[in-house]
This record gives sequence, structure tokens and C-alpha cells, in this order.
Amino acid sequence: MTWLDIPAGHPFGVATLPYGVFHTAADPHPRVGVAVGDQIIDLPAACRRLAPELAGAVAGPALDTLLAAGPRVWATLRGALTTWLSDEVYRDLLGGHLIPASDAIMHLPFTVADYVDFYASEQHATNLGKMFRPGQEPLTPNWKHLPIGYHGRAGTVVVSGTEVVRPSGQRRSPSGEITFGPSQRLDIEAELGYVVGRPSTLGRPVALEAFDEHVFGVCLVNDWSARDIQAWEYVPLGPFLGKSFATSISPWIVPLAALEHARVAPPARTVPLLPYLDDEKTPLWGLDIRLEVRLNGHVVARPSFAGMYWTGAQMLAHLTANGASLRTGDLYASGTISGGEPGSLIELSWNGQQPLTLPDGSVRTFLADGDEVEITATAPGPDGTLIGLGTVRGRISAG
Amino acid sequence: MTWLDIPAGHPFGVATLPYGVFHTAADPHPRVGVAVGDQIIDLPAACRRLAPELAGAVAGPALDTLLAAGPRVWATLRGALTTWLSDEVYRDLLGGHLIPASDAIMHLPFTVADYVDFYASEQHATNLGKMFRPGQEPLTPNWKHLPIGYHGRAGTVVVSGTEVVRPSGQRRSPSGEITFGPSQRLDIEAELGYVVGRPSTLGRPVALEAFDEHVFGVCLVNDWSARDIQAWEYVPLGPFLGKSFATSISPWIVPLAALEHARVAPPARTVPLLPYLDDEKTPLWGLDIRLEVRLNGHVVARPSFAGMYWTGAQMLAHLTANGASLRTGDLYASGTISGGEPGSLIELSWNGQQPLTLPDGSVRTFLADGDEVEITATAPGPDGTLIGLGTVRGRISAG
Repeated sequence: MTWLDIPAGHPFGVATLPYGVFHTAADPHPRVGVAVGDQIIDLPAACRRLAPELAGAVAGPALDTLLAAGPRVWATLRGALTTWLSDEVYRDLLGGHLIPASDAIMHLPFTVADYVDFYASEQHATNLGKMFRPGQEPLTPNWKHLPIGYHGRAGTVVVSGTEVVRPSGQRRSPSGEITFGPSQRLDIEAELGYVVGRPSTLGRPVALEAFDEHVFGVCLVNDWSARDIQAWEYVPLGPFLGKSFATSISPWIVPLAALEHARVAPPARTVPLLPYLDDEKTPLWGLDIRLEVRLNGHVVARPSFAGMYWTGAQMLAHLTANGASLRTGDLYASGTISGGEPGSLIELSWNGQQPLTLPDGSVRTFLADGDEVEITATAPGPDGTLIGLGTVRGRISAG
Repeated sequence: MTWLDIPAGHPFGVATLPYGVFHTAADPHPRVGVAVGDQIIDLPAACRRLAPELAGAVAGPALDTLLAAGPRVWATLRGALTTWLSDEVYRDLLGGHLIPASDAIMHLPFTVADYVDFYASEQHATNLGKMFRPGQEPLTPNWKHLPIGYHGRAGTVVVSGTEVVRPSGQRRSPSGEITFGPSQRLDIEAELGYVVGRPSTLGRPVALEAFDEHVFGVCLVNDWSARDIQAWEYVPLGPFLGKSFATSISPWIVPLAALEHARVAPPARTVPLLPYLDDEKTPLWGLDIRLEVRLNGHVVARPSFAGMYWTGAQMLAHLTANGASLRTGDLYASGTISGGEPGSLIELSWNGQQPLTLPDGSVRTFLADGDEVEITATAPGPDGTLIGLGTVRGRISAG
């Protein structure tokens, strides 16, 4: 319940309370905000007035300080926000710090430290295995033993809305000719991103149980992929230029605390797991998140995250199993989510062999210049409400 | 010529002038220094006195501001240092800002933005191909068309001298058993690292000719590698935990300007290159750098960098060919240098089949706990002098 006027079913209701960084024409300083309904709480201003002890954690032009502050501060701040929004007493006090979301220009919400991309959807890995290694077992022998991942380029993680310039690169034609030019197989990957808050110590793995002591929240990720560049470059050291030109993230980071009602058991494991990954006796971190992928306004897929083989907690335990340390602002993504329906065009068009016809009559295998891709998602909240994860959007411009 | 007392043949003579970050017991603030002989110029203090207009660029606890300042400032500062050290007039003025190198504790010299590791030595790639894909063509089909690279973990790049904890991880035994434990095949990789100063714009590739407008200098890199972890994880998305536990770099960044006399033509290309990589008509960036790898004080290899197939300029042009932007502090490394003699134990012991006997009678295939590895390097300087690249050192502790 809130005194604020929020349309029923709004994905940014009082149980979501995602954090972002915005500015307005009236005040061009980037600052931390919380989205609620169609408004944004100017959080530094609100805290200075209502909770000065929290003002330090939300100061500055990014979420970095809040991320680093750790789970106690995260819980205290969320508790304060909930109180302010539910108790009529705060109507006037908070009211002066509400800004229409339509006035806000959103920024990359935190300084991305390292970016890691996983490959956690069995359906996606199976589909790509069938396409790229026909006649072989589609999953590589390691796939069910560990969450496969690799490092991506942190410096080209951009906020939703940033134009994506079609990358150029080397590719090899079916006849073996090697040419350089704009990618002809530019694709999307609909993913969930985990944002690390509290750092860890070099040499000390982070156990499954410590997941929510380190991870602050989640965002949506579109890990744009140039399939032709990737196919030619990736053996033996993995994807590089096929990915590194841009990775878009949604501007609102939804705290893990907002996803309590979305937590589900991951699928049954068909291969026994080593102890550091075995989550049978640990808190469950499967998440019932439903995504929608739109191409030029038309829904092309509704992938489900609930059946992801590897959870965010397992990805984190694996990432740190060798003693690699975490820094505030580390971002790791799930890999393409292809539960039920696939989250990439290479799967939707089956490697370009089965073009999609959109409702407007246009036909696509991969992305054309001018195409706009929008990924949104929701999760179940308390009392039948929905928790929104916002939107990650990007338009392709000619390279 | 200098008024300073520098032993003849010292690798940090007046033509080297490398930059680092240090503190002393007397002044615990990390600050920028320049190594000359066995002393360090306290650069912020010297600039405040002798060149106030340069003091801003060398302020702060890291090289970041200097890196970002760009090639004009780099040249001006180097020119000033050369003048101060050669003109007797500065003896007293500079003398008060010289600190014995033995009093200094060195820091990671810059904030590492993204870290990329290449695979630019034909000898190394050939050796590994022979070991891992016996009976096949050792180089993958793409190898001579593009410098293969992948992103590593920037957050675990550490300065020389940092203890390296033996990483644990999953590995598969020859009989197919999958276990978790401390790596049994912990290795080194002797590499050269390029440090990016001036950033570039997203969507705009950096041409071969612009290499020295963006790259500030070089350091030595030991890209520690857990071969057993890597072998099990790396198909299909490349190395991850086998590398991400630690990457050590030397504390002194040698500016490109110090390597003028080391520039050589790269080897003849046996495959025609696409225009963005074709350096036949561009400034040559092969580098005649000679490395020495010591294990517990014994030289085990003297690899030569001069024959590296891909130059630093080509690596940079490739890294940005898709429009990926550079940030100040980006670090990219050459990959193991195996010209003449190989820069890794997996090659020296031929995949563990031919153990090395050290002069003290000890036998090694891979690294044992307590082992100390030291990589040093020199390059030709003016008038028969040597340019030193310093040392990257690390000791293995039990995991």
C-alpha cells in the first residue's frame, strides 16, 4: 500500500524499487534515483532530508558507493524507502523529491569493473551445438559439470538507448574467402545480468551461500553478437570481436530483495555436481523471470529464465573457485536465455535458414540497419503483483 | 651523459626513464616516480619545483592522469627529465627529490581498465597446437589472418612481488574422472604488455598508424596459467578460471619513446593481410626485446620478442577493428613469447613429458609451492646502451 498514485499492475510498484542514475534538464548532475510508478525519487535529496545517515551511500554520479556499502545498508535503505512510500506522513516530505520518469535521462548506473558472460541455458547451448557441430553431441563434455563462462569487454558495456554501430570485422565465406566488412549476421542475446556489490579477497572463493552477501541485484542485458565475426575468430580462445563492440544493459538495477517471490528450484541436475557447485542444500536461486523480446515493436520471443540450468549463485561460486577476487561493479551475465522460446535470432531463424516474418510483413534472419530491439522482463512479486526489470533497448546504425 | 652516478650498463640509464608508483616508509603516500639507476625521482615533488605546468599530470596515486594526458605531454615530460638529468645545473635542484630504489615499495602502476591477452607468437601457438591437437595442422586456420585474442580479468592483475596462491579448480584426469583441487599443472607465460594511454571513441577503429598516439608504453607480464583447469574448461568459449586467478606485471612502465632503437621489422608474412592489418607501408613495430625467465634463480629460458608474428600496432588495430573503444589503462599482452626459447613450462617440459633439471638438482615439469619466477628483459638503446624493462616476479604459495 502506498499513498503514491501508481497505476495497478505497474512493474515498478512499491515492491520493486530499482536503483538507477539519471539527470534532468533542470538539474544536469547525474545522481542516484529509485523508480516508483512513473516517477523517480531523487535519492540523495530525499536521504539528506529523511535519512541523513544514508546520504553518503547514495551520493555521487553512480551506484558505486551504494554497491560497495554491503547488504546491511542495502536492507536499511530499502526498508526506509518502503516506509516512506507506505506511511502517509511522508507524502509531503518525499513529494518534493519526486521527478517524472519522462523527464529523466538515464546513465550507465555503475562503473563496470569486470564483465563475464556465462552460457547457462541448456536449450541455448544445445541449439548452438546442433548448428555449429552437426552430428556431434550438442553439449560439450564439460557443460553439465561447470557453468561455462568467459570475460567480455567491460569498457563497452553501455546503457539502454545507446546506439549500436554495426561492427565490421573479418569473416570467412562458405567458399573460404576471407573478407573484412560490416557484420552480415548481427544478432541479439537476451540475458540476465548480476551486479556485484561487496568485493571479495584475492585467493578466497565465494561459497554458494554467500551469493546474496556479494550480489546487489540484477539487470537485463543484450549481449549483441556478430555471428560471422565470432565464427571465424573463436577457435581456440573464445569470442572476442564478435562481442566486444557493445553490450547494452537496462538502466534500473533491481535488488535481489525484490525477487524473493520469484525464487524457484533450478531444474533437476542430470550429472552429480562437485561440492562447491552442489546447491541441493543451499538457498535456491532459480528465478521465475519472464522476458519479452521485441524487434521493431513486434514480440519475437518470450523466453523464460526459470529453467536455467545454472543459477546466479553457482555462476558466482564458479567464477571465484580459483581464488579470483570480486570488485564492486563486477557484472556477470547468464548467457542467452532460451527457455521455452529462444532469446537470439540465430536460434529463432535457425542459423538464418528459417527467416522470421514480422506482423508488418518485413522478413528477418539477422538485424538490419535501423532495427530496434527491446527486451523487457517481469517476475512474480508479493500478493500477485509483478516486479518489473525494466527495459534494455538499442537501435542498429550502419557501420 | 648525466651528472648522476649510474653504474655503466645499468638497464635503467638515462635513456630508459620508466614510470612507476611507489611509497616509502618515510612517506607512505603512493606517488609517481621515475627510475634512474638505483634511484627514483619523486616526480610530483620534482615537477612542483622544476616544471609546475607538468605537476598536474603526475599527481595522484597512479599513472592514470599521465596516461590520459596523451603523447604531447608524454614527450614534454620525457624531454624535461632528460634535461634535468643531463644538465649539471639541475644537480642540486633535482638531488633533493631522489630516493634510493631500495627504500621504495612498488604499487600496481595504473588502474587496469580492460585486460586482453593475445596469442601472437607463432612458435608458441605451434607448440601448443602440436601438444593439444596432435596429428592436425598445429595453427588454427585463422591464426595468420588475425591476431587471436581474448579478454582476461582486469581485477586480478597484480604488481610484481604479489604472492600467487595456487588456484583450485575442476580438471579431468586422463581416465575421465572429474575432480576439484589445487592445480597440478601451474605454469607461467612470459609476455610483453602494452599500456593504453589516450582513449578512443566507441565505433571508431584505431588505425595501425595511430598506435603510438594511444599506447603509452610497455611492461612485462607473467600470465600465470593453470593448464589442467584450462584444458577442461576452454572449449568452446576460451580460457577463464585457468587464467583469471592472477596476472602479474612489472612495476615500471617503459615508454615507447625509450624503445626507438629496438624497433625492427616483424617477420615476413606468409599469408596476405587485410588492409587494416597490413603494416608493410606503416611504421614498423616489431621490437628487439630479449627476455630471461628464471625459476628459483636459475635461468630456464631466454625468449626473444623480435620474431613475434603480430606487432603491438596490429594487435591494437585488430582489438578496435569492430569499433570497440579504448580506455585509459587498458592493458593488452602479447601472449607467451617463445621465439628461440619458449616462455612457458608447458613448452619447456613438452607437456610435462620432459622434466627440467635445474642446476641445484631439483626437477620440475610445472611449478611447485614456494617456487619463485622472475622475468626480466632488455632492449637495445642508443649508443650501445641497454634499455631495461625491469622485472616481474612472483612466488607460489600453497592453495
